[in-house]
Amino acid sequence: MQSHFIGGAQRVVRDLPIQHREVVRNGGQRLVDMNGSYAVGQMYAMEYRLARPRSPLPVLLWHGGGMTGAQWESTPDGRQGWLWGLLQAGYDVVVCDAVERGRAGWAMFPEIYADAPVFRSAEEAWELFRIGHAAPAGESQARGLGEPFPGQQFPHARFDALVRQMVPRWLGHEAMAMAAYDALLEQFGPCVVFGHSQGGGFAAHAACRKPHLVRAVVGIEPTGMPAVQQPGGWEDFPPEAAIAHLAVWGDHFAHSPQWRKYREQTDAYWQSLSRAGGRADVLDLPVAGIAGNSHFCMLDANGDEVLQRVLDWLEGLTQ
Amino acid sequence: MQSHFIGGAQRVVRDLPIQHREVVRNGGQRLVDMNGSYAVGQMYAMEYRLARPRSPLPVLLWHGGGMTGAQWESTPDGRQGWLWGLLQAGYDVVVCDAVERGRAGWAMFPEIYADAPVFRSAEEAWELFRIGHAAPAGESQARGLGEPFPGQQFPHARFDALVRQMVPRWLGHEAMAMAAYDALLEQFGPCVVFGHSQGGGFAAHAACRKPHLVRAVVGIEPTGMPAVQQPGGWEDFPPEAAIAHLAVWGDHFAHSPQWRKYREQTDAYWQSLSRAGGRADVLDLPVAGIAGNSHFCMLDANGDEVLQRVLDWLEGLTQ
Repeated sequence: MQSHFIGGAQRVVRDLPIQHREVVRNGGQRLVDMNGSYAVGQMYAMEYRLARPRSPLPVLLWHGGGMTGAQWESTPDGRQGWLWGLLQAGYDVVVCDAVERGRAGWAMFPEIYADAPVFRSAEEAWELFRIGHAAPAGESQARGLGEPFPGQQFPHARFDALVRQMVPRWLGHEAMAMAAYDALLEQFGPCVVFGHSQGGGFAAHAACRKPHLVRAVVGIEPTGMPAVQQPGGWEDFPPEAAIAHLAVWGDHFAHSPQWRKYREQTDAYWQSLSRAGGRADVLDLPVAGIAGNSHFCMLDANGDEVLQRVLDWLEGLTQ
Repeated sequence: MQSHFIGGAQRVVRDLPIQHREVVRNGGQRLVDMNGSYAVGQMYAMEYRLARPRSPLPVLLWHGGGMTGAQWESTPDGRQGWLWGLLQAGYDVVVCDAVERGRAGWAMFPEIYADAPVFRSAEEAWELFRIGHAAPAGESQARGLGEPFPGQQFPHARFDALVRQMVPRWLGHEAMAMAAYDALLEQFGPCVVFGHSQGGGFAAHAACRKPHLVRAVVGIEPTGMPAVQQPGGWEDFPPEAAIAHLAVWGDHFAHSPQWRKYREQTDAYWQSLSRAGGRADVLDLPVAGIAGNSHFCMLDANGDEVLQRVLDWLEGLTQ
């Protein structure tokens, strides 16, 4: 096991005022001069290697927007995450914190990044992750949480533990994140990429850009596909770039117009993959008889069952 | 192995303007309403448990200011960090990201945190971590790096890899960080705490506050001690709070008036510990014949040798 900081570039900041601050408690004031050079755009990766992996292809785990690699480690109610399930199944694993998230760090704004990040409230997460209903509108802007959806597989009694692992993110920084993922793939590919939500979109982009390094994509509720039918879009890619993709979708879509819209975009991209001669499969969990999953099936009570279906698909690729 | 998010509290943000932003690439604009509830003040911890640890006391690893738990995992030149050395020596280990650092996440400012964070430039780190001389002053505020000190143990040819793992931090948030560490100790104590730099100061504070949970402190170039001879300071603590402390100091102090000052403060605190009947030991590496260490002895070329000295001290406590 080894951790890595991958990609990024140097940026120089000038003309900031010099401050007098107490940096060490009870240590007195000293000059704080933040002018100088910074690393910008790097990502973090923890590499888990088995003595005898079942496959030469490691599985790279790419988290969703506003999250970190911790989402693969443990569930909010303290069960083992997919990281351990994959290792137990015999795969080498690389857990990633994307640029600006978690241990990857982030850069000052507006001097380096142009603008401020966005933050996700607990209330937005409850609805957007399809855990349950919004609370009835009240006088407060912090409305609290509504009832969970019936049959919800997410461990909603420990929703607070999910909220504590959400981190800020910047909008419009996809190119910077993708550049670091490209560097990651050069280091660890050929590989299989599991991408959740925004990470699933990055995985699809990566498969377009580096088909010799991404041998399969598992998109768990993936969003933000490459544009279809546009210059530079998928249609321009050669058939050899049409590697195998699997999309995994949870339940409760009837409650979320936003998610139906995002899913339509991914559906269109999957169809485009098929037309280009690629294998573009879908694991629609409710259709497969697995009901009640949230946006985070890897954290849900039946996460092990979902992982097993994904592993079966992976195995099927090589038969 | 399991990861945890520990401590913190809920804070509500109101009256922020609602934005229209494209959150998912090619997904169209949607409302972004950041009003609502947030988790603030939590920390992250990865717990490594052995089947048969040599001690019932796990070792908690607390990083320095502007760093994350990654500093214990791997060295800039790709060697194994102290995390693995401790596991190989038979200790259970808990690697921590303090509040606001790494996977712990951080909260918006000025709505929740009062002010902006501070960032450490590569140039400041080069000097402050006692890697080498400052570059001669030039026309640019980004002066670049000077020559490394002769005999430098830090792998300075890979200094860029250290720069890529530095993260922003806030000044004056010690009470919030310490509250999360208190919650961590309640969960994992009794234990031994290894704290580097600012983390060493937190470890000394923790030993004062929770002597039943902190059974020994290893401060690696620790800074920010509790005030001595002041109300609420160490002299008010009962003798049973005077648990065993070890301070580890590297080399090149002659080049750094700032570090001599910080060290004097820690020396005074160590003396105060001794007067209170505690064991307050010092491993001055150059005096012990180990020359050339930087502020980051756990990353230095001779890091394994330094760790062995620390383990010998730990073993000595129980004999």
